[in-house]
Amino acid sequence: MRRSDFLNTDDAFFQQVAHRSQVGYLGLVTSEGYPRSVALNFVAVEQSIYFHGALAGEKFDLICGGEKVGFTMAWELSYIPSNWLGKEYACPATQMFKSVEIKGRCVVVEDVDEKARGLQALMEKHQPEGLFRPIAAGEKMYRKALEETGVFRVDADSWTGKARLFQEKSEAFQVKLTEKLAERGLAIDGDTILELRKMS
Amino acid sequence: MRRSDFLNTDDAFFQQVAHRSQVGYLGLVTSEGYPRSVALNFVAVEQSIYFHGALAGEKFDLICGGEKVGFTMAWELSYIPSNWLGKEYACPATQMFKSVEIKGRCVVVEDVDEKARGLQALMEKHQPEGLFRPIAAGEKMYRKALEETGVFRVDADSWTGKARLFQEKSEAFQVKLTEKLAERGLAIDGDTILELRKMS
Repeated sequence: MRRSDFLNTDDAFFQQVAHRSQVGYLGLVTSEGYPRSVALNFVAVEQSIYFHGALAGEKFDLICGGEKVGFTMAWELSYIPSNWLGKEYACPATQMFKSVEIKGRCVVVEDVDEKARGLQALMEKHQPEGLFRPIAAGEKMYRKALEETGVFRVDADSWTGKARLFQEKSEAFQVKLTEKLAERGLAIDGDTILELRKMS
Repeated sequence: MRRSDFLNTDDAFFQQVAHRSQVGYLGLVTSEGYPRSVALNFVAVEQSIYFHGALAGEKFDLICGGEKVGFTMAWELSYIPSNWLGKEYACPATQMFKSVEIKGRCVVVEDVDEKARGLQALMEKHQPEGLFRPIAAGEKMYRKALEETGVFRVDADSWTGKARLFQEKSEAFQVKLTEKLAERGLAIDGDTILELRKMS
């Protein structure tokens, strides 16, 4: 880890990164020894990660193998161009972010109630406006889908939170950065400003 | 792979996904056997991936080990809510995307000219507006940085492109989806519409 990144192990940090990351990356190792990072939609329920997928194929086979897995979620905040921080020198350019890396195990969820709860939580995260019939084990409309859809849960053995928010810099720096972000005004810059404010 | 995703091995596909993905995920396996997916900024030069980092730490040690690595880049297109596709049934909700998963090897770049070219390409991708002095091995301003910064290159043994663009659906479906996207009008929906148009 670079000295400008800081470690965090608060649950609130975990939950925020999980909520703000639309896509997470499941780390697996293939039978030939290649690590894979599989992009997928997910939801965190407490500190367990739920996602769904096919009950067949390489991902499923590797999960069934019961090996150790990883899961990374990264909330990409603002990209800061070098010229905001230096004159001609390119090196200060950097990506602001908050991320969580989990080391754990992945299981195929068998219990139909837990499958339904996982899928319902997934829908509530990605479609907060609702407009669907809630997924429940007793709901006839979903009986077939609950049988045929694989629901998977990653349980953390440990996890690490990291952030690059210029937290090591002075208050004057943070104020100036906030002004630059407000002036640029990309959608993500608003989120970054709120994160900077939380630190002051 | 789900039946609705399609495989692609065109270089143009690779280059587009690399260009549009701000952050990529380097797959490594720790000494305890946990797969890690490390989020980082990167650039593709032809089909090699360049990124930079510290010349110390776990990531560096694992790269130096010369083991197989993975590299995933995913361009997140529009999230499609279930109610666009069905009435009450939640299952059609889906994330549109184009992604590339690489299986390969990672090396520490030693040649200072190649290091400079890699870093320059990285800057050109993330800061296309320029406003920095170009990075070159002979440039005095960068001599120290080129010594102290680690530059890494992933060479692909193989790679797979995947996309979920409803490419299996009818033209009438695509037209209706385009209308819905245009009506919602999120920034990413414009990109998704362009991708749908390319297929027709």
